[in-house]
Amino acid sequence: MTHDQRQALLDILRHAPLDIGGDIGEQRVIFHDMIASVPLPEDVSTNPGELGGVPVLTVETPHIDPSTVILYFHGGAYALGSAADGAGLAADVGRRAGARVISVDYRLAPESPYPAALNDAVAAYRALLDQGTPSAAIAFVGESAGGGLVAATLVAIKAAGLPQPSSATVFSPWADLTVSGGSAAGKAAVDPALTADGLGRRALDYLGDTDPATPLASPVFADLTGVAPLLVQVGSYEILLDDAVRLAARAAEHDIEVQLQVWPGLPHVFQGFAAMVDEADVALDAAAAFVKAHLGVEAAPAPAERV
Amino acid sequence: MTHDQRQALLDILRHAPLDIGGDIGEQRVIFHDMIASVPLPEDVSTNPGELGGVPVLTVETPHIDPSTVILYFHGGAYALGSAADGAGLAADVGRRAGARVISVDYRLAPESPYPAALNDAVAAYRALLDQGTPSAAIAFVGESAGGGLVAATLVAIKAAGLPQPSSATVFSPWADLTVSGGSAAGKAAVDPALTADGLGRRALDYLGDTDPATPLASPVFADLTGVAPLLVQVGSYEILLDDAVRLAARAAEHDIEVQLQVWPGLPHVFQGFAAMVDEADVALDAAAAFVKAHLGVEAAPAPAERV
Repeated sequence: MTHDQRQALLDILRHAPLDIGGDIGEQRVIFHDMIASVPLPEDVSTNPGELGGVPVLTVETPHIDPSTVILYFHGGAYALGSAADGAGLAADVGRRAGARVISVDYRLAPESPYPAALNDAVAAYRALLDQGTPSAAIAFVGESAGGGLVAATLVAIKAAGLPQPSSATVFSPWADLTVSGGSAAGKAAVDPALTADGLGRRALDYLGDTDPATPLASPVFADLTGVAPLLVQVGSYEILLDDAVRLAARAAEHDIEVQLQVWPGLPHVFQGFAAMVDEADVALDAAAAFVKAHLGVEAAPAPAERV
Repeated sequence: MTHDQRQALLDILRHAPLDIGGDIGEQRVIFHDMIASVPLPEDVSTNPGELGGVPVLTVETPHIDPSTVILYFHGGAYALGSAADGAGLAADVGRRAGARVISVDYRLAPESPYPAALNDAVAAYRALLDQGTPSAAIAFVGESAGGGLVAATLVAIKAAGLPQPSSATVFSPWADLTVSGGSAAGKAAVDPALTADGLGRRALDYLGDTDPATPLASPVFADLTGVAPLLVQVGSYEILLDDAVRLAARAAEHDIEVQLQVWPGLPHVFQGFAAMVDEADVALDAAAAFVKAHLGVEAAPAPAERV
């Protein structure tokens, strides 16, 4: 019964000790402990390393094609989480897509505010290209803040004249740091995990004096022309629902191949709970199919290269 | 080269004699002749009949499962087209989904204004249920005005206490008869087929004195709570792009399972040109997969039945 599965997940999240707007030191521990309570499957290997001076964690499952890479960006409102914390979901995505995952340990706020995370993302991608990995063999995947970071990185690498990756997939992206989507209020009563106030506090940590509508922090306001094909997945029980909808709408307006998949009654980054809810399994398979369909396909050149 | 394919299709449409806002008598002939210039494949059979007093055309291809039915709604701005005109695309959808198609010859404006088309859609669906076809064995598919009519019909049958079909798929739906989406102006320069003025004229034919924002004519303004899972496909070179985006956004807001698929650089109901552009082939396969994934699945009961 998927209704019961959904209800159980919502209850767990509603009673979880995580407070996205709470004290950073405390919340980092809680966030880590929540995730660490689910051990990685035994067949997942993780190897720390670095790419372009940025710490990364390579996450591998059996039977993957080592020539394809998912560059992965964990969630945590730009202030919590780590590549290791995100390894479980990253491994699941990599296993289904048959690709090696390199999860980026981008710097966190408030210690390292904007644009530190973005610079780390671009540096890691540039290093991967410099090592000889073709852009068509790379897919971006990100969750929550990491999803917003994926979209911002697509824009930043276009400006830097780098080729786009083959595709970009984002789960429940936080793509508007002004927290002004209609769902910020409209879905507040049903979102068991996030609050607009909490996100507002984390936006301030990340941005300081920077305008929260700056397109490289809030890609719903960015010029998305020429970015990679985009898959956006979101639950309907999220205050971030409109971030996903507006990111997809913006991409559509700018003539990008984009798919939006909305899963009713499910919470923020429900894909992390594939062991509990059938929809997460279906969503992850859809994401893997999207990644695989685009891997190996040369993305359209960025407009700057068309001249 | 899909770029060349796209360009060829855009050129054809740009130079076609169809004027969506032109004289009804003339445009019906032009619309019919454009479509009749592509004959139906030899293995497609069409049989006229009626359902609930509404004329329909049953469209069948080999190897279909006769127990599953796609109730199909052709396009033509509520004033042009017919079940026969729509038979080519309807047959293609039915073939890929492995289902029998019943294409509804709903009454057209201006002779039969709103809510004639909607009443015909509801009557045909009700008759299909009364004949013993389970709602889970029925999928709705519609193109352009037929896509808007599909969404409106979902809302109308909910109000009438009828069960939802297993899914609803709409290609380039015309879902806002106020023609007020941002793309009405923003995509005017790249849309080779439709104009906002032309649609405005047809909206007046259909609605007369009825408010064009009435939810059963413009389902972007409807309460979509409890309607069937929805797939929305659209090209990015369409003044109706925002109809598709807002219909999906509205469904998401109302906790409906919804997917939006945007195909860059493609025009209105590009799915009708699968022989010319590869993307149409991919889109139709995606639509058929969506239809098949939901056929046989009992939709969630409408809220009125939950009491």
